Formats: sequence, structure tokens, C-alpha cells
Amino acid sequence: MSAFVVTGRALASRTPQETVLENVALLVGDDGIIQRRATCGTQAYQDLQSSETLVRLPADTLLVPGLTDLHIHAPQWPQAGTALDRPLEEWLGTYTFPLEARYSDAAFAATVYEDLVPTLLRNGTTTALYFATIHEDASLVLARTCLKYGQRGFVGLVAMDHPDLCPPDYRQASAQEALDATRRFIHAVRTLPGNEAGLVQPVITPRFIPACSDALLNGLGALAAEMNVRVQTHASESDWEHHHVLERAGQTDTSALDTFGLLRDHTILAHAGFLNQNDRTLVKERNAGLAHCPISNAFFAGAALPVRDVLDDHVHCGLGTDLSGGYSPSIFENARQAVLASRMLESGTNPEILPAKRGLPNHRIDFQEAFWLATRGGAEALGVPSGQLLPGQAFDALELRCTLGSLRLSSQDSAASCAQKIVCHASPETIDRVWINGRLVKE
Amino acid sequence: MSAFVVTGRALASRTPQETVLENVALLVGDDGIIQRRATCGTQAYQDLQSSETLVRLPADTLLVPGLTDLHIHAPQWPQAGTALDRPLEEWLGTYTFPLEARYSDAAFAATVYEDLVPTLLRNGTTTALYFATIHEDASLVLARTCLKYGQRGFVGLVAMDHPDLCPPDYRQASAQEALDATRRFIHAVRTLPGNEAGLVQPVITPRFIPACSDALLNGLGALAAEMNVRVQTHASESDWEHHHVLERAGQTDTSALDTFGLLRDHTILAHAGFLNQNDRTLVKERNAGLAHCPISNAFFAGAALPVRDVLDDHVHCGLGTDLSGGYSPSIFENARQAVLASRMLESGTNPEILPAKRGLPNHRIDFQEAFWLATRGGAEALGVPSGQLLPGQAFDALELRCTLGSLRLSSQDSAASCAQKIVCHASPETIDRVWINGRLVKE
Repeated sequence: MSAFVVTGRALASRTPQETVLENVALLVGDDGIIQRRATCGTQAYQDLQSSETLVRLPADTLLVPGLTDLHIHAPQWPQAGTALDRPLEEWLGTYTFPLEARYSDAAFAATVYEDLVPTLLRNGTTTALYFATIHEDASLVLARTCLKYGQRGFVGLVAMDHPDLCPPDYRQASAQEALDATRRFIHAVRTLPGNEAGLVQPVITPRFIPACSDALLNGLGALAAEMNVRVQTHASESDWEHHHVLERAGQTDTSALDTFGLLRDHTILAHAGFLNQNDRTLVKERNAGLAHCPISNAFFAGAALPVRDVLDDHVHCGLGTDLSGGYSPSIFENARQAVLASRMLESGTNPEILPAKRGLPNHRIDFQEAFWLATRGGAEALGVPSGQLLPGQAFDALELRCTLGSLRLSSQDSAASCAQKIVCHASPETIDRVWINGRLVKE
Repeated sequence: MSAFVVTGRALASRTPQETVLENVALLVGDDGIIQRRATCGTQAYQDLQSSETLVRLPADTLLVPGLTDLHIHAPQWPQAGTALDRPLEEWLGTYTFPLEARYSDAAFAATVYEDLVPTLLRNGTTTALYFATIHEDASLVLARTCLKYGQRGFVGLVAMDHPDLCPPDYRQASAQEALDATRRFIHAVRTLPGNEAGLVQPVITPRFIPACSDALLNGLGALAAEMNVRVQTHASESDWEHHHVLERAGQTDTSALDTFGLLRDHTILAHAGFLNQNDRTLVKERNAGLAHCPISNAFFAGAALPVRDVLDDHVHCGLGTDLSGGYSPSIFENARQAVLASRMLESGTNPEILPAKRGLPNHRIDFQEAFWLATRGGAEALGVPSGQLLPGQAFDALELRCTLGSLRLSSQDSAASCAQKIVCHASPETIDRVWINGRLVKE
């Protein structure tokens, strides 16, 4: 790829509470990294504008950072928008394990992943942290599909060996088998042809504590340290899951994961609705983060993540679609749901209760914060240098059409109102070009 | 319009809990009404298929009934997706009354309504029950715009005269002035050139009790009976509004509206989150109905409408976008939010409370019920013969592309799973042709 300069109106978060809207010129190096950023009216802007490889964005568009999906089960895409009628502990055995077991057929996997990855790109997801399945071949198909379409993919071979929770036809036969498979998978992804720049990364992925033996969890923690690999898992997802771990481990998910060596740099805990203050402190100390999945939580969590507390405590946090616990592949749709869920946590929902006792006051987040979660929040949690269109960050970006679909952005809109309207109204219809690491992946 | 026959796969609700999926042929008369319906495999189907004016839907499409938006403030479209940070009583004076006051300029109204009505058609809204503003000219512009684009529009000139709540520059000067204006507006809409078939109807529209004097409310009730016009208003929308009326009238909104003669055949009460059992019984006895606005409620209601109880009590109910209290012009997006809100009412939201005390058990609705609310529920509440693609009903219908956007419908899907996937995934991208009263209004 050659270096190029892109000019246009750009919107990005500076902090969760502050969004910046400026006419900018960005110099993107041949490595896909933003090397310089200049605002309109400066000499540096003039200099960049005279580049021979100029991409001038039309006036009716707005450049925003690409979106990060911090929690998505790629193999569950065929049941997205169905199977939302059972509690988590029944949903797994009834619908999800049987579906995931089908990925022993790598050809089936290819069909699904060839549909899913482009769908995510159309929705603006430039970085995705995937759960795959226990199958090495099929999970490599997912890694290859990310590479093929240019998506920044973090792919986890799922590890699960606990016979009490996992069916015989969908689990690794032993902790050692799961550990060996994970080690092979890490090596295979790292050496995938075409992946020399590391666009796709392996992730150590214990499904969640209930599905894993202690031996497996300990082994994966050691492997993460040995091979310096990120970790993802579910934590305190529902009342059932939270109490299951409390009973088995005598401590919360978060603290148990830490004991196993799994709470590390950029470990992502999905859901995390029942974390207490100590848990949040521990997550922060370990430089780990949370994947907030507000659509899924309405069906499976039994409560809302107090994302207000998470932001106020400066714990890393982004958004996850949690396909298919959540039905939508859109991080924007999850961003608006994050706002709605925070309002319903703040106000409560039961009209039979007096307003003063109904909710948890001062627990709302606003739309700028949701925009942050969708862009920089997720990238930061995962340790990806992107999400703000700043020098040193990868050029992962979306070109939004300002007046397509339901979006109505005008030159009078402030940065805050742009962020709010985008969270409320952005959809694949409004997303035009998509770049990942400087490469145009959708036009 | 000439009569025609349409053949294809069609999905519609029989009851809130039962959805039917069949290959059908529908004979649509030159008045836009479905005259015959035959299922594939019958002689009647063969006969219809030999029609000379056959519209054969492609195999990768699905016909569904058009959507009814039971509560939408057309003039608030310019602030959709903004201004969601204040409680209702502040929101009105800070953002909304000043915006609505601008519709004294009919040219401004034309610009907005020319954008809004086609946007709603792209979203599948074939019937809309609109609040306009207090301005007769601008409100007639809305009626004319519905006519122009062929949308079934119910348009209300807003009546509001209470000096305590309404600003001096945005209220009618007296009850009599508001009554005279309403009477003129009803006449003007009924005699609009091109409206001979009554596609667009006037609606008596007291904003809500706090904004109206008793004299105005009494007068509007009498006018509704005299001129046989539908009524719409807000009722028990938030804690503030609910208690304001309890204090002023010594009774609930619902029962006060009944006293004023405003709870009539097909009166639509928007929001209605704090109705009690007696209120619901009264609504049912009067053959009135509720407009459930789940997105708006997250911002302004302070609680969730117990729509489970509403359905179980067989009270008429449909969905409203409540633009711009709700940000989305899509009834499908509101339908999925209705499911989510019902789950968050059922489970509660506060993770600090024990699960057994957190929510209101058995209060979920499912996706088939949401599909009903979006289609037949709203039409039934409003007394429009549509929403099920049955003989005697108007041919108001959407052609959905089964595998566009995020929608993935296959021939293996049951009626229930089609309904669920459509509620979860339908968007303007997936909506192809739209017919209203037999007329193709979007292709």
C-alpha cells in the first residue's frame, strides 16, 4: 500500500465525555498508520493537501473511527435473531452447543464466515474479538476470512472441557487436549500466509468458568503468559453464572480468573453485569477491560451493567454485539441500546414501584459516551491503537453519508450532536467507504 | 387503479400469538381492498393466478402487512436523535415548544414533511397517526404531503391553551379559538382535493391534559361526538404527568379523558405506562387503544409499559415511534425495543437487588407479539381495516427481501421464526416495494 492523504470533516472522541469535530488532513503511511494530522487553516494542512495521493472526502460525508466489536460469537450467526426465549443455562444446551458442534465441518464454517465478515464490515466493525468454536480447522477458516476481507480480527479457539456443562459431542476430551489445541491454534494464526503484519491475532478463550476444569483454566493462564497472548472469556454474565462460580470457586468470576492467571493485559470480560467494586478495581489493576453487550443482557443477564460506574472508575470498556445472545451485528445499534439500558437502570422499569425506589439514580450514560464505547473504548480495552484518528493510530475509519437513511447531519451540528445523531441513526445504509489499517475494505 | 392479483409468500398475524406463513394469491380490487385470498394448491389459487394483471413476487421476497405508527410528532423530525437529556416537563419548554412554534412558517413545514413522509414509507410505515402543531396551514401541509405520497395519514391539529404550561408564542389564545381551529381543520382535511376516498383523516388532538383547559377538553369531547372524529392524546406518560393530572383532576388521565368525552371509539392514548387495571378496563370498554412507545419511554416515562398485561387484558395496542421523544422513525426498531423493554421489566435492571425482588415476573412479550403490535395491533386500535392481508382489508403491504441487510430468511423458517427475524433485523434496506390501499408507493 502507498501512503496517502485523506481530507474531510472528521468526528472522534477525545475522552468519553468530549467529542471533537474538525476539518482535517490525515497522512496515512504505507504501514496503514496515521503519521500526521493537521486541521484546516494551518500550514501543515496546506502542505498535506498538496499531496499527490489525495483522497478528498465529499462535503456531505463525515469521517469517524471504525467500530470495535469486543464480543461476538461468529459461529452463532446462523441463529441471530432467533432462540432468545430460554435462560442462559438452558439456551446453551438447547440451541447453541448443537449449532456450534456443526463447525466440525469446515465447509459449513466457510459458508457462515463468508457471510458474517462482510456483514460486519458493512456495519462498520473494523475490529472484532471473536469466539469461534472448539474446532481448529473451522476457527482457522474464520481467521483466514478476516484476512481475506481485511478485517482486524482477534480469533479465539474456544476451550471447554467440563463434562458437567458441556455435551460429549462438543467439548475437548481433557484439559491437556484443549491446551494442546490452543497452543497449535496460536501458532497457526501467527504463521498464516498473508498475516505477516499481524492483522489477525489468536486469543486464548476459555468459554467461561462453568465450562472449564480448573486444570484447563490454570493451563490457559500459564499459556497466556508464556506465549504473550490476549485472553477473552465471559464473567458474571447472569445470576445463574455468577452464583455458579461463587459456589464452585468461593469467589467471584473476576477474582477467580485472576487466580488462574487469566486476568491480564487486555483480557476482555464479556457482560460483567454483576461485578462489584473490588472486581472492577482488579480489572483496572490488571489493565483488562469489559465488553458491554446491552442487547444480549436484556435477554440473558437479568440486570443491566452499571456502565456509569465502569466509566467513572476508568475501567476499560467497549461494546459487544454478543451474536447471537444479541441479535444485531451492529455496534451502532448496541451503542444506542447501551444508552437506553442505562436510562432503564437509572429510572427502573416497574411502574408499580414509587419513582424514588424504582431505579438507581445517576446511572445514565449519554450518547457521546456511547460513541466513545463504540470507537475508542473498545480499541483501548483490547490494546489496539485505533479509535480516535490520531497520529500513531491505525487508519481504521468509516465514511458516513450525512443525510442518508435516517441520519440528518448538517454543518450547524456540534460535535456532541453529531455523535448523538450518529449513535441514534447510523446504519449500513449510512456507511459508505470503510478503511482498516489504511486499506479500503468496503466501498 | 385497476384490480390486480399478487402472488407470493406472505406472513401475517392471525392473533398476537399466532403468525401464519403461506403461499397465497390476493385479488386486490380497484378500490385497494383485498377481495379474495387463496392459498397455493387450491383451485381458487389457480384461478387467481391466471389473472391478466398478475404481480408475481420473487421467491426471495416475503409479503408482510404494512406497519402502523400509532404516535408520531411530525414537526419534531428535525430534532430526532437529539434533545434526550431532560425530563419531559423541561424537554417541552426547552426544546420542543420552540421547535414546534417554527411551524407558523408553512414553508418550513413543507421542507420537513417532504423529508419525513418518504422516510417513513422507506421504513414501512403505511399508516401514521400524527400530531402536527397548532398551525392550521402547516398541519394541512402535512395532510397534503401524506396524500401526495399515498400514505394513510391521520393528522391532528394540536390543541393546547393552558397558560401555565404552554408558552405565549405557542398556544391557542383561548379554548374557543382552539375549538374553532379544530373544527376548521377537520373540514379542511375532509375536503382536501384528492382526498375523496378519505386516505387522510383529521384527528382531534388535545396535546395532553396539562396543556389544556377543562373548557377546551370538554369542547373537544363534544366536537368529537358531533363530527364523529377520532381522538388522540398523551396519557400517564411519566410520573410527573401522571401525578400532575391526579392532582388537578382528582382522577387518572384515562378516567378524566373519559369524563371529558375524549375516550371514544379508536381514541389513542400515547404511552400509558401508569394505567391501572381500572384504566385499562375503561379503555377497553370505550374501544380505545394504547400507543406503546418503548424507545421514548426509556428517556421520558421513568418506567416501562406493562404491555404483557395490556395484551392479556385484550386492550387494543400498537406501537408508536413518538418522534422525537423516540429517535427512530422505524416501527420495526420500536418493535424490537418493545420486546427488550418487556424483558427488562420482567427481570428488573438493578444488579444490586436480589433476582427474586428485582423485576415483575412473567411480563415478557415475545417477537410474534411484537410483530402483531407493529402490524395488526396498531391498525386494529385505530380502526383501520388492514394489518393481516385478509379479504375486506386494504392492501397495505411491504415486500421484504429475505437476505438483504442482516435479514436471513430461508424456506426452512417457520412463521414464528420469520416473525422473530423480521422484528430483529428488518430495516429500510430490506424493504423493497410498499403498497398502500393497493397503490404502489415505493419501489
